[in-house]
Amino acid sequence: MRIAIFEESDNIRGGLVEGDKIRAFDLEIGALGVASIDDGFLENPVFTGEEFDIEDVEILSPVLVPPRIFGIGLNYADHAKETGRPIPTDATWFMKQTTSVNEPNGFVEKPNVSDQLDFEVELVVIIGKTCRHVPASRANEVILGYSVGCDYSVRDWQRKTTQFTLGKGFDSHAPFGPFLVTPDEITNLDDLGLRCFVNGQKMQDSKIGDMIFKIPQLIEEATKIMTLLPGDVIFTGTPAGVGMARNPQLWLKAGDIVRCEIDEIGVIENKIIDEEVETIIE
Amino acid sequence: MRIAIFEESDNIRGGLVEGDKIRAFDLEIGALGVASIDDGFLENPVFTGEEFDIEDVEILSPVLVPPRIFGIGLNYADHAKETGRPIPTDATWFMKQTTSVNEPNGFVEKPNVSDQLDFEVELVVIIGKTCRHVPASRANEVILGYSVGCDYSVRDWQRKTTQFTLGKGFDSHAPFGPFLVTPDEITNLDDLGLRCFVNGQKMQDSKIGDMIFKIPQLIEEATKIMTLLPGDVIFTGTPAGVGMARNPQLWLKAGDIVRCEIDEIGVIENKIIDEEVETIIE
Repeated sequence: MRIAIFEESDNIRGGLVEGDKIRAFDLEIGALGVASIDDGFLENPVFTGEEFDIEDVEILSPVLVPPRIFGIGLNYADHAKETGRPIPTDATWFMKQTTSVNEPNGFVEKPNVSDQLDFEVELVVIIGKTCRHVPASRANEVILGYSVGCDYSVRDWQRKTTQFTLGKGFDSHAPFGPFLVTPDEITNLDDLGLRCFVNGQKMQDSKIGDMIFKIPQLIEEATKIMTLLPGDVIFTGTPAGVGMARNPQLWLKAGDIVRCEIDEIGVIENKIIDEEVETIIE
Repeated sequence: MRIAIFEESDNIRGGLVEGDKIRAFDLEIGALGVASIDDGFLENPVFTGEEFDIEDVEILSPVLVPPRIFGIGLNYADHAKETGRPIPTDATWFMKQTTSVNEPNGFVEKPNVSDQLDFEVELVVIIGKTCRHVPASRANEVILGYSVGCDYSVRDWQRKTTQFTLGKGFDSHAPFGPFLVTPDEITNLDDLGLRCFVNGQKMQDSKIGDMIFKIPQLIEEATKIMTLLPGDVIFTGTPAGVGMARNPQLWLKAGDIVRCEIDEIGVIENKIIDEEVETIIE
């Protein structure tokens, strides 16, 4: 199944994507999207009978408010090499911010405090179960689905201290979608190509199979440490070709269009805009 | 005010702490503690008329499910020195996990996968507003209150890669409380002593005023990057004396009692237990 969360006539709705149509289903908004999908929908959907053209609705993030967004650094050998680091023997886990969630085709802000905005196409995994100590061999039981993500990264802030938190955490910098694609939709995950284009020019082009740490292994490792929750999101790392590692370096600026795509999963596209700085206390 | 979230007769309640009594107030559980406190309670509490002895109830975390828990590394000069690092010029932000939240006096697990469990007494700040681009001069407007926290850290996992995420993220490793103490309760934050004892022996003893990056500065920096949310929690860093830096090193083991205290704010105390490993998928 391909599941969309979308807005139509000011209502947030859930829907099953079939071609260029969406069949709406009841979505419990209190549960913020995935919780209600997890809670029996996949087995027993209750459709409202309404059908929409995808073009007529606004597609939102397939998890509106994830409990957390994890990221994996250096998970493709060619990307580790281009950043000047050895091939890692352990996965580098960092956090993106839940306040960074953006619509799959939302505007992405070039921060006021930096000119080093970079792109990273990534396969996104969405967790569907509360789970702990999951062996790799059972990881498939806790994966709800996949999306395409762009892990926008602000390189000077990422490298200002040892920790990536701020550089990976700007508002608007975690768009993913366009849909939650359940595992049964995918023929062979390792064979899927992932690509990123900036203003139509191909910047990244690799295959999921080139990941160093595979998804089951990542889930096994994380759950040795902590409980994962339904709606948790993992950005699984990016291949070579990011702006920071190019010669000359390429930094995104207002007006640029960043398109990220993964075979069989989908396409997201973000326009870069300049951040408007405003003090908000409310 | 000193505000407690507590459990009594299987109900989760909110209450105002007065000496060794708690006057219960209505708590909207859907809003998970802080949201309801923020939502007008401080100005307009609605008491139920019930009063409890503190001894008779179970004190829970003053934010049951924070949106996020931030941590600051190396925020006391003596601690930076004992870890062999220079005095930082920028605050090192990392994340603890919301699944690590524990009761102020809850059991803390010695992980199955490590023998390097360490303690860090810290001042905890609880954010009360949705806010962005807050200048340091207005940071007081967004601070809801303070608590005492212990940032339990698993050193081998913290140092396995460049990022602290896993080592700081074990289940049960973020106890804080016992109450949310509003800023008006505190005479002078900088003068407050903070101390940590293991089995009655003093391990850490410093003053909040020795922090390198002050709270207003931290809030200004974070909100340049991202929106902070009501209930967000910041563990503001620990002074010297942690187990890793001692000679010989001191690692916590089952049966140890860790007591953390900050003047005018309170005391939390955790007993260390061995983790029981079990695969959970639900």
